[in-house]
Amino acid sequence: MYIGVDYYPEQWPKERWQEDVSLMKELGVNVVRLAEFGWQLMEPKEGVYDFSLFDEVIDLMSQHDIKVVLGTPTATPPAWMIHNYPDILPVDEEGVTISFGGRRHYSVNSKRYRAFSVKIVEQLAKHYGRNETVIGWQTDNEYGHEKSDRSYGEQDRVAFHEWLKDKYETLEHVNEAWGTAFWSQTYTEWEQIPAPKKVLQEHNPGLLLDWDRFCSDQYTSYNKEQCDVLRHHISEDQFITHNFVFNEQAIKQRDMTKDLDFVSYDNYPVWGGLAEPIPPAAIAQQHDLCRATKDGKGYWVMEELAGAQGWSQIGYLPRPGHIKLWTYQAIARGAEAIVYFRWRAARYGTEQFCHGILDHDGKPRRKFEEVKEVFLELKEMGDDWIASHYEPEVGVYYDVENAWAWKIQPQSSALRYKEELVRFYNGAYRLNAATTIVHPESSLEGLKTIIVPLYFLNNSSFTSKLKEYVNDGGTVVLTYRSGVKNEDNAVTDRTLPGELAELAGIEVHEYEPLQEGQQHRVVGTAGHIADVMSPATVWCDLIETTTAEVIAKYRDAFYEGTPAITKNKYGKGFVYYIGTAVEDYYLARLYRDVFRESNVKTYDMPEDVEIIIRKKENGKRYLCVLNHSTTASHRITLPKGIWKDAISGEKFQGDVRMPSLGATLLIER
Amino acid sequence: MYIGVDYYPEQWPKERWQEDVSLMKELGVNVVRLAEFGWQLMEPKEGVYDFSLFDEVIDLMSQHDIKVVLGTPTATPPAWMIHNYPDILPVDEEGVTISFGGRRHYSVNSKRYRAFSVKIVEQLAKHYGRNETVIGWQTDNEYGHEKSDRSYGEQDRVAFHEWLKDKYETLEHVNEAWGTAFWSQTYTEWEQIPAPKKVLQEHNPGLLLDWDRFCSDQYTSYNKEQCDVLRHHISEDQFITHNFVFNEQAIKQRDMTKDLDFVSYDNYPVWGGLAEPIPPAAIAQQHDLCRATKDGKGYWVMEELAGAQGWSQIGYLPRPGHIKLWTYQAIARGAEAIVYFRWRAARYGTEQFCHGILDHDGKPRRKFEEVKEVFLELKEMGDDWIASHYEPEVGVYYDVENAWAWKIQPQSSALRYKEELVRFYNGAYRLNAATTIVHPESSLEGLKTIIVPLYFLNNSSFTSKLKEYVNDGGTVVLTYRSGVKNEDNAVTDRTLPGELAELAGIEVHEYEPLQEGQQHRVVGTAGHIADVMSPATVWCDLIETTTAEVIAKYRDAFYEGTPAITKNKYGKGFVYYIGTAVEDYYLARLYRDVFRESNVKTYDMPEDVEIIIRKKENGKRYLCVLNHSTTASHRITLPKGIWKDAISGEKFQGDVRMPSLGATLLIER
Amino acid sequence: MYIGVDYYPEQWPKERWQEDVSLMKELGVNVVRLAEFGWQLMEPKEGVYDFSLFDEVIDLMSQHDIKVVLGTPTATPPAWMIHNYPDILPVDEEGVTISFGGRRHYSVNSKRYRAFSVKIVEQLAKHYGRNETVIGWQTDNEYGHEKSDRSYGEQDRVAFHEWLKDKYETLEHVNEAWGTAFWSQTYTEWEQIPAPKKVLQEHNPGLLLDWDRFCSDQYTSYNKEQCDVLRHHISEDQFITHNFVFNEQAIKQRDMTKDLDFVSYDNYPVWGGLAEPIPPAAIAQQHDLCRATKDGKGYWVMEELAGAQGWSQIGYLPRPGHIKLWTYQAIARGAEAIVYFRWRAARYGTEQFCHGILDHDGKPRRKFEEVKEVFLELKEMGDDWIASHYEPEVGVYYDVENAWAWKIQPQSSALRYKEELVRFYNGAYRLNAATTIVHPESSLEGLKTIIVPLYFLNNSSFTSKLKEYVNDGGTVVLTYRSGVKNEDNAVTDRTLPGELAELAGIEVHEYEPLQEGQQHRVVGTAGHIADVMSPATVWCDLIETTTAEVIAKYRDAFYEGTPAITKNKYGKGFVYYIGTAVEDYYLARLYRDVFRESNVKTYDMPEDVEIIIRKKENGKRYLCVLNHSTTASHRITLPKGIWKDAISGEKFQGDVRMPSLGATLLIER
Repeated sequence: MYIGVDYYPEQWPKERWQEDVSLMKELGVNVVRLAEFGWQLMEPKEGVYDFSLFDEVIDLMSQHDIKVVLGTPTATPPAWMIHNYPDILPVDEEGVTISFGGRRHYSVNSKRYRAFSVKIVEQLAKHYGRNETVIGWQTDNEYGHEKSDRSYGEQDRVAFHEWLKDKYETLEHVNEAWGTAFWSQTYTEWEQIPAPKKVLQEHNPGLLLDWDRFCSDQYTSYNKEQCDVLRHHISEDQFITHNFVFNEQAIKQRDMTKDLDFVSYDNYPVWGGLAEPIPPAAIAQQHDLCRATKDGKGYWVMEELAGAQGWSQIGYLPRPGHIKLWTYQAIARGAEAIVYFRWRAARYGTEQFCHGILDHDGKPRRKFEEVKEVFLELKEMGDDWIASHYEPEVGVYYDVENAWAWKIQPQSSALRYKEELVRFYNGAYRLNAATTIVHPESSLEGLKTIIVPLYFLNNSSFTSKLKEYVNDGGTVVLTYRSGVKNEDNAVTDRTLPGELAELAGIEVHEYEPLQEGQQHRVVGTAGHIADVMSPATVWCDLIETTTAEVIAKYRDAFYEGTPAITKNKYGKGFVYYIGTAVEDYYLARLYRDVFRESNVKTYDMPEDVEIIIRKKENGKRYLCVLNHSTTASHRITLPKGIWKDAISGEKFQGDVRMPSLGATLLIER
Repeated sequence: MYIGVDYYPEQWPKERWQEDVSLMKELGVNVVRLAEFGWQLMEPKEGVYDFSLFDEVIDLMSQHDIKVVLGTPTATPPAWMIHNYPDILPVDEEGVTISFGGRRHYSVNSKRYRAFSVKIVEQLAKHYGRNETVIGWQTDNEYGHEKSDRSYGEQDRVAFHEWLKDKYETLEHVNEAWGTAFWSQTYTEWEQIPAPKKVLQEHNPGLLLDWDRFCSDQYTSYNKEQCDVLRHHISEDQFITHNFVFNEQAIKQRDMTKDLDFVSYDNYPVWGGLAEPIPPAAIAQQHDLCRATKDGKGYWVMEELAGAQGWSQIGYLPRPGHIKLWTYQAIARGAEAIVYFRWRAARYGTEQFCHGILDHDGKPRRKFEEVKEVFLELKEMGDDWIASHYEPEVGVYYDVENAWAWKIQPQSSALRYKEELVRFYNGAYRLNAATTIVHPESSLEGLKTIIVPLYFLNNSSFTSKLKEYVNDGGTVVLTYRSGVKNEDNAVTDRTLPGELAELAGIEVHEYEPLQEGQQHRVVGTAGHIADVMSPATVWCDLIETTTAEVIAKYRDAFYEGTPAITKNKYGKGFVYYIGTAVEDYYLARLYRDVFRESNVKTYDMPEDVEIIIRKKENGKRYLCVLNHSTTASHRITLPKGIWKDAISGEKFQGDVRMPSLGATLLIER
Repeated sequence: MYIGVDYYPEQWPKERWQEDVSLMKELGVNVVRLAEFGWQLMEPKEGVYDFSLFDEVIDLMSQHDIKVVLGTPTATPPAWMIHNYPDILPVDEEGVTISFGGRRHYSVNSKRYRAFSVKIVEQLAKHYGRNETVIGWQTDNEYGHEKSDRSYGEQDRVAFHEWLKDKYETLEHVNEAWGTAFWSQTYTEWEQIPAPKKVLQEHNPGLLLDWDRFCSDQYTSYNKEQCDVLRHHISEDQFITHNFVFNEQAIKQRDMTKDLDFVSYDNYPVWGGLAEPIPPAAIAQQHDLCRATKDGKGYWVMEELAGAQGWSQIGYLPRPGHIKLWTYQAIARGAEAIVYFRWRAARYGTEQFCHGILDHDGKPRRKFEEVKEVFLELKEMGDDWIASHYEPEVGVYYDVENAWAWKIQPQSSALRYKEELVRFYNGAYRLNAATTIVHPESSLEGLKTIIVPLYFLNNSSFTSKLKEYVNDGGTVVLTYRSGVKNEDNAVTDRTLPGELAELAGIEVHEYEPLQEGQQHRVVGTAGHIADVMSPATVWCDLIETTTAEVIAKYRDAFYEGTPAITKNKYGKGFVYYIGTAVEDYYLARLYRDVFRESNVKTYDMPEDVEIIIRKKENGKRYLCVLNHSTTASHRITLPKGIWKDAISGEKFQGDVRMPSLGATLLIER
């Protein structure tokens, strides 16, 4: 198993390198990622290439049996390039040209920049494509991060026109798709179409969604250009990956992944300015998403947090145990390699307060010791562990295009799509069901329940797949705001939930957004939620059943008594529809019924405790137990079986106590 | 009585039109507004006109005896025009040119745009000016809305110079009016005068107020251009109106109204992102303002909310009963026609979530039935009702120039002029006094009390009128921040309240803004407020009486015991001065005394209940009773008399029970 | 003693001048400041000079024995100049050119503007340099205020390159200092270096700190240009000063002061929009800072608040007594002259609501009487008082470069450097210790304790001075975030607190920012804080002692029991290290121990009461007693001795009662 660090030798005097490598060896590092911001060193002036610094570093690594992942340096075009060709710079919605001085200061639509990128990648590929220490490549760094996904300059607008011509062929199709009769926006020449720069109101939602698709596609093609050049020159043994961040930026990772050998991911459960980490369910959901992005294939965590993070604002200090906990969570959910960010905190530059395994003084201390313990355990059992498989039973739908549509029209001040996604994911997470993320092209085979939260942007082919899936006996959970939009981001003219209405056996005749701070109530009428009440927030769909039965009703407003949650028999399966945002405890109760019915395995654990089970072909099970609480230890009941700690050889069964922030990898005896 | 819908046939397939019209006929629609965003359809390319779509629609309407109000389409210059002539676009305070993609994307100072406008209006007028189905015209749409009132580009700045030359003739006059000796701002050439674009501090308040006047005047002249062209071509039977929104934008509606046959108004008591409707008093105040804008003449509600509204954020769902309630409130306060916005929710464009009588699926449901009931009642009694008159006894002063002055210098973080206006209006509203809005040119005849809230920008001719009014026996209520500014937005050099000091019989020697969250107290010394305490917020004037008597004092700070509210005998009348923002209950108590003394009729009703009385020449009375509460029914005592429901024939007198959201129109027997 | 008013005769008709002067004489005014915004009057068109208005005013003053301080008018370039030479205007971070219409609308890097400035200053100096009524000069007005410190245009960027060449000589030095290997930012030509305009992330902290230094140095050289021209022409009897505001703007006052005869200061304890004045300790700290800026030399308050202040928002109304209180505080802490802002509130322009001694109506009232009382007392005893000296025993470190570094990287949402500075100053203020501000070049002689709050940006020479100081027996108090950065704004590679580690006898191995609203606790283990608990906010350093002893520990989180406050013996002295933000009461307890040990005199007073003691060479003491409470009177015990009120002749000793907002200047008998 690869486990290593993100290393920036160029930021330190050469005299230090030897000590760094010694300490890495002490830790057990077998891989480092290098060079992803090193363009200026590699091409100090236009057309002059110099790889001597990285040659030296790679030699040093080679001498110590440490492998190298090389980043292509295109996230940071050098000062000379920007000074000579300022047209490379991106432009914001107000027309401000972004300055040199940060990173990702290029428009992906700059043909000039693409030419420069191809050249440097080619040089790198030629130089290192056969180097045996170099095991693989990372293209660029965090595409689209920090608002670098959308650029609104003139070259971007022109590229948008080309993209539109490809997609629509005729302006009539564009006008029809966007409904430009509204507000007299009909386009009679391609050149009339704007980039969505500042308007006094809001742009056409059809244009906005296509703009996001365009931005994403341009990055996909840009990445493909780099991959094509690399593949042409590098050894077949070298892989190509990219380290994604999964925000709502205009990047469709699953498209880009087609050109990559596997996905990488930068895992930061806490960041600058945050008083505490994001919820464990949100971290877990991101891992499931990574794994699902290339259809279940294992991924690398290319940047795993190893200390407090931040730029001008620092965040929460990860507690002793957090590094291990988050590492084991990653491995249990599908990571096959872990690279810690970063080896040592930088003395210079914007990321001065991104703390690493070592802090600025370079002395090994608590974090070093903690990471060393992780390395030790993983050396012993890592390969065995990652050779096992995670077998999801519950799929949670996520389509980045749906996320874009929500970003364009959040519809309530209380509605943050990502939080709602985690809400409906969390119901399954709390029951320790084996979850995965499904996207429109995913196979649903083997999944026993599909949860489809806030399925605003209907994808007809996925909806057909869902129908077939339920018809054949599957269970689907739908929520409010399903089936509202067609793929052009136009509202359906069918009664809501549109294409899902028959499946759900309901019609939604009215609805109301609840704003920040507003709440109504629902009360259940069946199963584990019978007579149980929950606050209803964010949104209320007022449901009329056609074939469905009612399992919860509203308690407030003029819609008191109106159905809020329903269940429908469809073919051999069942469809639930949850018309409002209920609380976590309530959702867990509801899901308990759903999962029992659909034979999803669940494990009752205290709220802080997460367990993940993996299996080998031979049926041998692997168990990861994580106590996310920073203060409470918990007595838990292990899944049936005898479980062995690979290091201590200690065996566990039945009830055990998990200390706060305890994290254990166990193998079935 | 005209009652109808805003209809956008261009946004729907022709196949649907027939069904729409059938449903409209079922409802009782006799008028539709059309075409106000239809420019691209009418002029698909420069100079090529095509009215075939609207011809067809108007024919269809004609066949079904539905009349048409036609909008001139100038709120949405088409894409081809902006692409060819981008100098039409407005520019914001930071110099950003607003993009195509919304609406109202023109500078009213663009001569090119004015030429285009005249041409399209002329074509329309020639084409439909004698069409008997077309009963009238709406110019453009919501002038100045969504920050389209002020544009800061070079052509705007040049137009400002022309406007200033007209107003001031010489630069000496400008320099004097603005007091440009301050901060060395004296102008020696017209060209030196800036548009008020971004500065590090704040612009000269004199310049800012003139800028607002300029922006408003340019819109007035723009509207007049359209009206002149229309009048030249259209039948005398066709009216011209414009649908206003009354915000603090730089539009002086009462000027523009001189060119219009009557005022129209877009009535949205709740909007996207709001958790609940604005207070009933605020809605009532807007209706009074509409009516007063053309000196008491009846107006149209050209857009009456018919469902939840919003763009990217939706707001509160109007409850069953709200549409009827808000419609009857409008009619009782002066609306002579109601046009619901909109017939059916749009599938495309920015306003996808502006819900109509029909939602996206086009099926008649709850809202359709509710509106149908309203149509039925109004068909029966509407004409009779609107032939009666509203006879105001209490005037509340509102001058949009005063609102601009407050926008320029709000003076306290807690001071929002519009809220303060409603505060002092609400005191009368709660007592069900018959209110109206008075502006500087209004006749005060017949009014028994004039309330003049936050009369910051003194208008000398109105102040003279007030003096005469009081001298002749009228009663005036003044508040804090009266008489502070002259018409150039310079501070008076007279002791406050400046020109009002003698009238009020007081001097204000000091004052203090109270910030958000701060409060002091006042306690009354006479009448219904004797020994009653109220929080004092927003502002405290420290009063010294000259001839006035004290009726409330402060209880806190170093000004404990200082007069806070006073009453002065002046000529045959009385003048009250309220030096601080007191609570609603307190103001109602104070006004009770004021109104008793000035013989203003008041009706005690529960806080949620509003009644409006209208009269015919023959003395017959019409009574509208509205219970704004969404939850509480109320027992109320009707004004003396026997009141008949025109539909049911049922008679009412004395005590009756009004259900929550109950709304009734009654006729005196 | 000079005591007077800021007078703007140009804003009023000449007919009023005589009355103004009569009222000034009634008050006792002996100096006015004039003309600092009068450029347009002096140079109505390019190259045409006209000083007639000010000649007339100065004549009038001369006739009444009132002296004049003349402002150079460069804070407000006239309209003609900006219209003809718009390249003078500053540019913001987004590239927006600031408009004419406010003040300070020039880039200090405009060579054109510098030439204009030199010319007008030369004309003024020639004209008034020998005028006996004119006693001195104020250059410009509030350099850098209102974000006028930083301009990001092309001429600014070019000037930055020149500055960098001067400082670094080679690009290699720049690249090394800023660590441009980070994110591939290495510069290979000077022209590549950006002004820190908008980026998607954050700029390099090294560049940002140098940018601030550059901006400050440019203002220093600009001021020097004015001073040089003045000195060349004016009499030796005329002084030159500048009225500073002390924010975190990019102005290093102590550099600029080298060219000035003394510092002036604009003292506004409350401003527009504030619900109450800033804390008394914060006002005191600013006075100490003024005095320290020119190494203890007395300063002028060139603008002393005389009424409620504000532009579009007004603030808290100073209570009766506040003017006197704040005046006496100023004098006691080092002001040698007081000039009230402003004589009369302006009727025109942005500062309409900056109230003066007179309000807009020009009638003397409460404030006039209050100020008159102050004038009377100061006439009697002012000269004697200011001839005495303030003898500080406690120094509090403040380096504006450190403030810039904190502005660049505040590191926690709860960390506002200025508030933290006041926190650690306030501990001494509450004990009525005699405080001063020390900066890197200050002499530490005579000081018994040096408090060095948040010494983030280490200044090596000051650190050496501190070491020597402690070694020789001094006491130093350090706090969290000490020694983090070197002078290039790079993080030290030494274990924290870096160069201070040996001095403090500790190492900081980890730390955690606490965000807004977060808190932990500390509990003391020795002295006055033994067993006393305080909330710990803002930041927690986790300390390991090397030679220090622990005097407080954390009570929460995983670092419960970890040292939070320590004390170290170093040479003959002691060094305290406070690793977190404790509450005021707690700090006062801790400082009580520190001061007892270091023989700092303290005086126990109620929390609202401040006393300041001054001495003459002959040992005679002067005592100022201030009760800052607006509501509570306090019984206090005077320092030993018999104290005489110079006016009433009344003598005080032992216990006396101070009324709320009482302020007294007493002389030892």
